[in-house]
Formats: sequence, C-alpha cells, structure tokens
Amino acid sequence: MNETSPVGRAPAVVVFDVNETLSDLTPLRASFESVGLAAESVEPWFAGLLRDGFALTCVGVNPAFADLARESLRIRLLGSGVTPEPGSENADDAVERVMSGFTSLPVHPDVVEGVRALQSAGIRLVTLTNGSTSVAEGLLERAGLADAFERLMSVESAGAWKPHPSSYAYALGECGVSAGEAILVAVHPWDIDGAARAGLRTGWLNRSGGSYPSYFRRPELEVGSLVELAHAWEG
Amino acid sequence: MNETSPVGRAPAVVVFDVNETLSDLTPLRASFESVGLAAESVEPWFAGLLRDGFALTCVGVNPAFADLARESLRIRLLGSGVTPEPGSENADDAVERVMSGFTSLPVHPDVVEGVRALQSAGIRLVTLTNGSTSVAEGLLERAGLADAFERLMSVESAGAWKPHPSSYAYALGECGVSAGEAILVAVHPWDIDGAARAGLRTGWLNRSGGSYPSYFRRPELEVGSLVELAHAWEG
Repeated sequence: MNETSPVGRAPAVVVFDVNETLSDLTPLRASFESVGLAAESVEPWFAGLLRDGFALTCVGVNPAFADLARESLRIRLLGSGVTPEPGSENADDAVERVMSGFTSLPVHPDVVEGVRALQSAGIRLVTLTNGSTSVAEGLLERAGLADAFERLMSVESAGAWKPHPSSYAYALGECGVSAGEAILVAVHPWDIDGAARAGLRTGWLNRSGGSYPSYFRRPELEVGSLVELAHAWEG
Repeated sequence: MNETSPVGRAPAVVVFDVNETLSDLTPLRASFESVGLAAESVEPWFAGLLRDGFALTCVGVNPAFADLARESLRIRLLGSGVTPEPGSENADDAVERVMSGFTSLPVHPDVVEGVRALQSAGIRLVTLTNGSTSVAEGLLERAGLADAFERLMSVESAGAWKPHPSSYAYALGECGVSAGEAILVAVHPWDIDGAARAGLRTGWLNRSGGSYPSYFRRPELEVGSLVELAHAWEG
C-alpha cells in the first residue's frame, strides 16, 4: 500500500453499511409481486421506511427496523387494493412472506471478491446497520463471509439510527478506533453524509453510476464496486 | 360548540401542514410524465426527499426544501435513462418544468369548504410547512383562501424541519399559544407523531382511507376531510 496515494492511506477499519450496500434487494421485487404488489413499489416502501425511521430518530426514538419494515409493508398491502381471496393467506401472512424474502437476500456479485481482497490487505472489517445484527449475520453466512468480519453491529445498541452522530460514535467505541482511522462504506448518500459529519472517512459505493446529491457532504472516495474499493489504497 | 364532546373542546388554533395536506400532488404525475419520468415515481421521489431532509435534520442541518426537491429530481432524471434529444430541453430545464408544476398545484376539493367552516367557527388558522412560505402563499391565493389564514410559517425560520420538536415550538411561539391550545392537522403520520410528542393536539387527515402506522403516536382525531374536521367540535 502506498501511503502517499492521492486517496490517502488505507484505513484501519472499514465500517460497512448492510442493507443495499452488501445485500442485493433485487429479489424483493419478486417477493412483492408474489403477494400482489407492484415490483416498482419496493423503492417507495424502502424510502418510506427510512423516512419514518429518521423521523423517529429526529424525536429521540430508536425503533426496531423490522417493526417499521413489517408495519409499512402491511399498510401498503392494505392500501393497494390487493384483497386476499377467501381461504388464501391474509395480509399478515403476506407480510411475513415478504419479510422472509428480506432475511434471505444474497450479497451483490462484487461483495465476496471485494471483502476477501480487503481482508487480505489486513484491514479490519465490521458492519453497522440500522437493521438487526441477525440479518447481517445470516447474509454474511450465506455468502461464506462470516469469518472475514471482526464484529457485526446494529444501531439497536447505539441508541439512535444512522445518520445520528451517536450511531457512528458507538461503532468507533466498539472498535476502539478514532474517527479518522475508520471509513464508512455505503451506497446511501445520507449515510456518507452522517459519517462525514461524525468525522469518519467515507467511501460511496456507486454501483449504478448515479449522481451524488449536492446537499450532502461529499465522500472521500467513490467506487463502482467493493473490488475497486479494495484496490483503492494500492500503490 | 359542545365543550363536553367526546373529541374535546375546539382548539384555539389549527396548524395546518401544507404539502399533500392542503395541496393536491396529483397533477405532479402529469408533470413527471411530461419530462419522461413514470407517473408512479412521484411517490418515491417525495418519500426520498423527506427521507433526505429528515436525515439532515438528524444531524442538525436545516436545508431548503426546494433545494432537496430540485436536486433529487435532477438525480432521478439523470438516472432514469431519459436522454433529452439534441436541441430539446436539458435536465435542468426539465427539473424547472416539474418544479413549476409543484408551485402551481391546486388545493384538495375539501379544502375551501373546510377552511371556511373552521374560520366561521372562530378558530385561528395558520400553516407550518417544511417547504417555503411562498409556496403556501401561492397555493392559498389561487384557492381564494389567503384571507382565512392568520399566519403562514415555514421551518426555514424554526431552525429545524418537522418533526423536530423545535419546529412545533416555533409555531406555538409565533402564535402565542400553549401546545394544548393548538391542533396540528396533517395527512402525514410522521407529522402527527412529532406534534403529539411536542404536546400539541393532533388531527390525522386520512382522505384515502389508509391505515395509521402503529409505530407512531396515534392522533387524537381522524377525519376523512377538512369539512369533517370543521364539524368535529360541533355539538
């Protein structure tokens, strides 16, 4: 590794976001369709669940991600005009079917190679999710990557969802590193912004070639895949 | 008015949310289509813009609603695969076309009758928006309702977006009333929740017959229209 590289020295710890950053939500589209919801409604459902979680974070509440996911899905089902036929599953069964899809998502194709390359470079790897630790654990176990991660963390123990500063401070404390020794890697600009304001280094994982919102603090690094991230600090 | 009504006595002040509560976003669907975006993407755009605004509120930033609206729309246009033909408008022109649609929305059909009935009952009427005061002003002028409102307020002057407690406290201070003398009326459950936590009375305007999320504090009142609200405190 080259300490004089324009992207800076390698971090001591990479703090990965989990949902959408490591996990691929694409199969949820089929899960939605299987219960009569439009595949396109995955996006507003997920955005609305984060909106409501952040609203509660603004007023000092630290809700369980899964509770918001289930309830917002149930409300969407009830409002969609999808009426379960007599004898078929009811809305609660449909919600559980989609949630079961959510807890069995795969990782993105670049994750295994990227994570192994970062591990080989001697960088400590951890996760910090607004969801539950068990979802991250299952995801990484299915991908055969559980051994590569030193610690899986959830904001459930931090007292506040990301992007509240307490969430990042909690992760740094658990890892025993200063903010400048850690880099937060995420697909979500709001997570990059929050981590940057908390003093962490930041890497925006932009798999889709999207644009970064000008109203958020810019990331230190932008990469198209975790493989690219793993090579960012090479000479 | 009947002070012993089960819904309680009439409030001194009704604090109305503006976007979607008074304004009808339906015409935005056509605005989106006119620039090549799917009509269905109004919902994720609006949810994503609130998500990002709340994320910034969580970290102590008070952004301009219009900046987030424009920029998130620009990014959606750039990512949509809609390529302006040579000689036709570019993404910035398309953004301004949609934003112009946003600032010329109509009020919902129940608003004029409901507001006039509340006014006749001697209740003070104000607005508190996460957007700009000028958008609320234009909306109410087009509806011929400008004279019915004592004061139009924006979180731009409050230091924080709703549902942060400072936003409601600011509105109460401007109106010179205690929290218990005011009722926040909104279509958005996150606004009801924030107002309830700030001590205000709350009225959920549920025009679409939707379900209220169990993870938010429940409203004191639920009505299907502003006309119904105006009659809520009658004997």
